[in-house]
Amino acid sequence: MVAATPTPRTAPDAVPTRPARESAAPATGELPADAVADVIVVGGGGGGLPAALYSRWLGNEVLLLEKAPELGGTAKKAAFWYWVPNNVPMRALGLVDEEPDFLRYVARLARPTSYDPASPTLGLSQWEYDMCRAIYESASPAAELLAEKGALEYRHCPDVVDYWSELPEDKAPTGRVLVPRGARDTMSDGGAVGVASMAAAAERDGVDIRVSHRVQRLVLADGAVVGVEATTADGRTRRFGARKAVVFATGGFTHDLDLRRNFLHTPVYGGCAALTNEGDFLAIAGPVGAQLRNMNYAWMCPVPLERAVSRDPALSGMFSVAGDSTIFVDKTGRRVVNEKLQYNELAQKFFSYDGANGEYPYLVLVQIWDQRSQDHSASDEYGRQIVPPGTDDSHVIRGDTLEALADAVADRLSRYAQLTGGLTLDPGFVPTLRQSIARFNGFAERGVDEDFHRGEKPVQLLFNGPVKDEPGRANPTMWPMSSSGPYYASLITGGTLDTKGGPRTNTDAQVLDDTGTPITGLYGVGNCVASPSAQAYWAGGATLGPIIAFAYRAAQAADREPVRESHQLTPSAS
Amino acid sequence: MVAATPTPRTAPDAVPTRPARESAAPATGELPADAVADVIVVGGGGGGLPAALYSRWLGNEVLLLEKAPELGGTAKKAAFWYWVPNNVPMRALGLVDEEPDFLRYVARLARPTSYDPASPTLGLSQWEYDMCRAIYESASPAAELLAEKGALEYRHCPDVVDYWSELPEDKAPTGRVLVPRGARDTMSDGGAVGVASMAAAAERDGVDIRVSHRVQRLVLADGAVVGVEATTADGRTRRFGARKAVVFATGGFTHDLDLRRNFLHTPVYGGCAALTNEGDFLAIAGPVGAQLRNMNYAWMCPVPLERAVSRDPALSGMFSVAGDSTIFVDKTGRRVVNEKLQYNELAQKFFSYDGANGEYPYLVLVQIWDQRSQDHSASDEYGRQIVPPGTDDSHVIRGDTLEALADAVADRLSRYAQLTGGLTLDPGFVPTLRQSIARFNGFAERGVDEDFHRGEKPVQLLFNGPVKDEPGRANPTMWPMSSSGPYYASLITGGTLDTKGGPRTNTDAQVLDDTGTPITGLYGVGNCVASPSAQAYWAGGATLGPIIAFAYRAAQAADREPVRESHQLTPSAS
Repeated sequence: MVAATPTPRTAPDAVPTRPARESAAPATGELPADAVADVIVVGGGGGGLPAALYSRWLGNEVLLLEKAPELGGTAKKAAFWYWVPNNVPMRALGLVDEEPDFLRYVARLARPTSYDPASPTLGLSQWEYDMCRAIYESASPAAELLAEKGALEYRHCPDVVDYWSELPEDKAPTGRVLVPRGARDTMSDGGAVGVASMAAAAERDGVDIRVSHRVQRLVLADGAVVGVEATTADGRTRRFGARKAVVFATGGFTHDLDLRRNFLHTPVYGGCAALTNEGDFLAIAGPVGAQLRNMNYAWMCPVPLERAVSRDPALSGMFSVAGDSTIFVDKTGRRVVNEKLQYNELAQKFFSYDGANGEYPYLVLVQIWDQRSQDHSASDEYGRQIVPPGTDDSHVIRGDTLEALADAVADRLSRYAQLTGGLTLDPGFVPTLRQSIARFNGFAERGVDEDFHRGEKPVQLLFNGPVKDEPGRANPTMWPMSSSGPYYASLITGGTLDTKGGPRTNTDAQVLDDTGTPITGLYGVGNCVASPSAQAYWAGGATLGPIIAFAYRAAQAADREPVRESHQLTPSAS
Repeated sequence: MVAATPTPRTAPDAVPTRPARESAAPATGELPADAVADVIVVGGGGGGLPAALYSRWLGNEVLLLEKAPELGGTAKKAAFWYWVPNNVPMRALGLVDEEPDFLRYVARLARPTSYDPASPTLGLSQWEYDMCRAIYESASPAAELLAEKGALEYRHCPDVVDYWSELPEDKAPTGRVLVPRGARDTMSDGGAVGVASMAAAAERDGVDIRVSHRVQRLVLADGAVVGVEATTADGRTRRFGARKAVVFATGGFTHDLDLRRNFLHTPVYGGCAALTNEGDFLAIAGPVGAQLRNMNYAWMCPVPLERAVSRDPALSGMFSVAGDSTIFVDKTGRRVVNEKLQYNELAQKFFSYDGANGEYPYLVLVQIWDQRSQDHSASDEYGRQIVPPGTDDSHVIRGDTLEALADAVADRLSRYAQLTGGLTLDPGFVPTLRQSIARFNGFAERGVDEDFHRGEKPVQLLFNGPVKDEPGRANPTMWPMSSSGPYYASLITGGTLDTKGGPRTNTDAQVLDDTGTPITGLYGVGNCVASPSAQAYWAGGATLGPIIAFAYRAAQAADREPVRESHQLTPSAS
């Protein structure tokens, strides 16, 4: 029986946030500024807030401009783990994390096809190598300073493993992860806690914060960046002067369909970045000669198809696929992947290309679970699809039998055909699904997944989520699926947490032109600039740990800039 | 027995051609020009030569600047098929190729995950859709004009199939391909013929051609592009003025390692584009606000690993894998792909990512063949690996037995370990290879490849190459491999013919800024600008057919530009 189904919510990705984007051509000339500061930080999320704080603590007047009506960006939605090599609590515990080992681990994963332990840069480009060294050097002092100042106190997670802890290159497989101290035990609310804490510190310490200001373009004088122009919700243009530097921290381009399709290595369906992450800095930085790097890769995660295409602002990536009696199957009913792979790697499976047929056969996979997992693995954290009663379960498809479930899945898929290249279930879906379940159940009974090795690596246990206690079982990621209904399903595809590409910066976070020369006064940190991680997702918090390191370095370098006094920097009388 | 093996030739990709790249920051100011023309064309290959000719035939003074010491670029190395929808000889034969059908075919393949026959743009972006319409409209008149003027006479190939001729969307599966008239029967020398013919016409009709001029930057006046600066082999900077327009046709970024790694969707090992294709236009166009598109995709082809990493200027992509008693196997000895897939699709197989192990298990595949294929399928055309006696066979690995061959392959691979992430043969390679051969031989005997369906589609027969005549056999792409040696092998990986991304242009080939407004005086055609083909390789010649169409449109639009007279355009007295 198929329940009555509403028309699905979809939203064109190209709809811009308000205020709308305008021309990014730089402004020049001597208009008075609405306000002047030593350092302007653009973006109030996981990169902008620390950059503003570090700058302020160095004695600068700091103006922070945020496009959204509130601070936080993507970081506020995240668990806000931050990956900090050789951090203070690691050292206190005697965990050794030496730089050469750290560099081998990051290089092995960033560029697996060119990794060369004998190369002076380990197969990375010199730029990537230098940036990775900067992460090692500065992430820990950056985290310590935030903690000392009470802006972001942390809790050490000594048992959390790196995402590739089993590799011989990982000499510090546990201990690099910190989370905001006030986060709950499951750590999933770290972003809300961390953002609130940093925002309070910014307020306390006198950062001038202005929300609902969309920065549109740079203001240039004599080849230097001396300010920005922003538009406000009422459509007015405001000019702001920077005596020392402008630091962009405006996030990636997850929510610009055209940019995603034209840069990313996989045709993802959006993702869980803040909706304001539309790649603004790409257009803004181009005219001063910025060169883009790492535009092909993203911090990836599976996402529920329906929430992704509706651009649900509350969308969470599926950072943890919970449950033991649950599998993913493709349109033929076949199980095709280890469902417990770390999310960045799991997300790539959806984009396996079939060159013989010119299609992506795994573009949408179907997560299927039984009543047992519904009863014991439901959770509203980390983007899990098995949700508890009382939460939004519009993505959940139900059937009393596998046949009924398949009918309901087929019906749901048909509503998204215009967004999936016409994907439908194969006619033999149910019998193949039965075979897949039978095979999986055999693996679950023996505790060994002969096809995909589910549960064999530490990171897969880290993300197993709540499951029913079964004393003595060898593999807690698997349990046989019930031979009777009801059954449940959800449509899954691949998306991004956010993208990784943008202008290339040096290790001081200065944006570089095509000759590798810093563009005077222009800095960038976070997902709006190029990450040296290439394709790697090294560990939980491999986003925010390096971002905080570069925010720290950006603030120090910006502080050293000579103070520019010019007509452009004269505050308006108004 | 392993023969004595020399140290492999490898060449850092980052070595620039001479003259070296300089800053791309635009020049302004009133320096006198070394020469002035109505239209400056930058690049003398498959896009630049027709753009110059079309402009000249409209009555313009045309200056053509080429970085290399000779004309031709990548086109000269190519077979120079050109794919021309609804072309004149098709129509003469009664082959129907209507625009709506053409558009469905190109859309289905360009964006398979968003193809929607009910959408007004078929799931393409409006820009992609408009550009594809322009190809349909202009490729044929462009080809006809080149022929009428004697610059590029053609031969129609009525039996050559599109690369996806079996799709229901392909309503004109044969007949769209033209080749230069003077090309040999196998058509492989079309590029040399076509370039010589167009170059002779340019000379004849008074195009001012200057080779060994590397354009470094634009010259701007009042926001318009009014010329370029170039450096010559002796290191001197020359300025050239354009009264109407500058048309870039400088090719893609196949030979810039950093750009490849930071933009392409697969970590390819270079490719067979002219060595001058280093992405110059990306840096040059940025400062005037150009926005990059389709930077993730490339015209792909398999390439021999060793010639690719040595940056052999004569490298050919493997457009045709010849032979029947030959297979590709991976490092474990397993056959993993249909060796006769069209080259763009075959090339992607090398970059299948294994998220469980963080590696590309098929990064290098080994083509293996026997004496039969050596005797009957050797050819020095289309990048085939089975070459005749007397040609360079440094890529050929030999063994009297499979064991000896495997030893020699392992030895050869070990010399490239620093470039492959340490790829080695698995210990069980030989027994697995024996099983693979046995299984393949069974398929060959029955004429049916149950694993990969080799030879089942028309395009696979098109590229089968010469094979021994075996009257009556059902599948000419397969024959059992011999149970005795000698055996031969070659190391294969994926590369590009050239890349597909660059500044976005409109249908008149005008480069657009971030608001979609043309940048006055700046045009681009060919692989240096964004292709609307997204991920598709529609057919043989799907590169050059559209390029000629846009060269034609660029010339017409540039001809309509108002003549700009300024101090920048004053020829120098020298």
